[in-house]
Amino acid sequence: MSRPEFDLIHWIRSQVRDREPVRVGIGDDAACLRPPADRDQLVAIDMLMEGVHFTFPDATPEQAGRKALAVNVSDIAAMAGEPTAAFVSVALPKHRGAQFARRVHTGVIELAEEFNIVIAGGDTNSWNGPLVISVTLTGHPVGPRSICRDGAKPGDWLFVTGKLGGSLPTRHHLTFTPRLAEAKKLARMVELHAMMDISDGLAADLDHILTASRVGALLVADQIPLTEWALASTDGSSPLQHGLSDGEDFELLFAVSPEEGERLLAQWPETTPITRVGEIVEAAGCRIRYPDGRIEPLSPIGWTHSLDAEGQ
Amino acid sequence: MSRPEFDLIHWIRSQVRDREPVRVGIGDDAACLRPPADRDQLVAIDMLMEGVHFTFPDATPEQAGRKALAVNVSDIAAMAGEPTAAFVSVALPKHRGAQFARRVHTGVIELAEEFNIVIAGGDTNSWNGPLVISVTLTGHPVGPRSICRDGAKPGDWLFVTGKLGGSLPTRHHLTFTPRLAEAKKLARMVELHAMMDISDGLAADLDHILTASRVGALLVADQIPLTEWALASTDGSSPLQHGLSDGEDFELLFAVSPEEGERLLAQWPETTPITRVGEIVEAAGCRIRYPDGRIEPLSPIGWTHSLDAEGQ
Repeated sequence: MSRPEFDLIHWIRSQVRDREPVRVGIGDDAACLRPPADRDQLVAIDMLMEGVHFTFPDATPEQAGRKALAVNVSDIAAMAGEPTAAFVSVALPKHRGAQFARRVHTGVIELAEEFNIVIAGGDTNSWNGPLVISVTLTGHPVGPRSICRDGAKPGDWLFVTGKLGGSLPTRHHLTFTPRLAEAKKLARMVELHAMMDISDGLAADLDHILTASRVGALLVADQIPLTEWALASTDGSSPLQHGLSDGEDFELLFAVSPEEGERLLAQWPETTPITRVGEIVEAAGCRIRYPDGRIEPLSPIGWTHSLDAEGQ
Repeated sequence: MSRPEFDLIHWIRSQVRDREPVRVGIGDDAACLRPPADRDQLVAIDMLMEGVHFTFPDATPEQAGRKALAVNVSDIAAMAGEPTAAFVSVALPKHRGAQFARRVHTGVIELAEEFNIVIAGGDTNSWNGPLVISVTLTGHPVGPRSICRDGAKPGDWLFVTGKLGGSLPTRHHLTFTPRLAEAKKLARMVELHAMMDISDGLAADLDHILTASRVGALLVADQIPLTEWALASTDGSSPLQHGLSDGEDFELLFAVSPEEGERLLAQWPETTPITRVGEIVEAAGCRIRYPDGRIEPLSPIGWTHSLDAEGQ
């Protein structure tokens, strides 16, 4: 570890304060946490790379850092969890200098403050390569248990939060607010059977729930909530295709019983909309019903996480 | 996420089995652990980059993966902890292909098996850049509390495990066994005042303990245990300089009371040697006593983590 890295660590320590559940924070061989007793612990981990998950100067350094934490908050939210402590590893491009490194961490720290997350550790490195940020985020379930992907049941109603499509061209992926408040509200209002966040596109991510739960689904095409960008798109893909396949929406996709679904629609108190987009069925696979009554199979092909032209 | 990445995740899942403390492992938005009740939890995180912490073909892909976990095991050991669950994020160079990715993970998985660590999650990405591996490792203290860097007291004896110097040229850094057994034995035998692992060189890392504990130290030059490579070195640096400054030894450095130190020397049961290298003093700073009686200040300058010629 070189002098500039010690300086960066010193600066990061000056920006954050240790608090529950941290007993030993930044600056020892490992962090030491005291998790709440008798609670499961959630651990999310995501690595973001320059040129794949963000590019400069399209993103600011702060936005790159913010996104690296935000995608993990979205993962903890999708488990119906409350985030607690974040650990931030970076590979910093040497040519960008110390101010750049601070700006990346400022983006992380500001979002952490917003969600009452303590930065409890990390690892700072520099190299001649592009920026890489890997964040590990711990948390615990809001309710008695976390919500996984494997509990969807035939007859369940499928919902999504917000609107889908165009996250990359609208730069939503750099500025989105993880649906933590919505996930916590859902966990308290209803019995969630399955939940995840939509990062690879609705069609691809729904397939994960269907596979894990060993069920199928029928989506209703004209009920899928689309962003204004998707509705106005003129790039050759239909608005619906954008809503089904665009990546990085970071909205919640969840399944509840019809009774709970009705109650949700009647009583949902948040400003973020929730929309019923279909239902779980017994027969494997995903199908979609169009306004003219046609029902067609839906391929789980979604977005591949790459901003470069080549794709992955 | 693309098809090859799903294939890799599927393969990783087939190689590991969920076990305590994992309730939900690889394949959901986040992992869910049930940590032991009323125990602190340790979290270590380290990011390793191709060209900085390993190079190809000098290292095999398995060695790169193994090292990424080993450095974290060393960190948990240095807290007097027992590792439990690992989370592995990778940025895989596209041109190296799927077999390379499996070999990297094989290195991680084999060391995990050796130390009874469960791989509980991760994030796989590919790009056109070099290999990056970030591992997060959880654990818990072996004894009632973890051992930090801030508890060294004037009069304490300073010890190191093993021998120091030449980890990079001898490729020890790619094959070392983290001193977990030794750390656990120490934690059970004596009251450790401070402990850390030596990754930046004895002089640099001792400085961390001295700063955190607000004390100084006097090292005894001819008691510092040197590797055969350091003793035989003919590269212009003295054997002692190698022992004080070479990086990536991954040995333990710890402080205990003189009474405990004497008992350790008399009763130490492990084959890995432990050596008394000096003592803690009240006056700040580190000094070193040479065989001729001279006492000189020792600068905390150690190795910078870079295998490239430029350094950091």
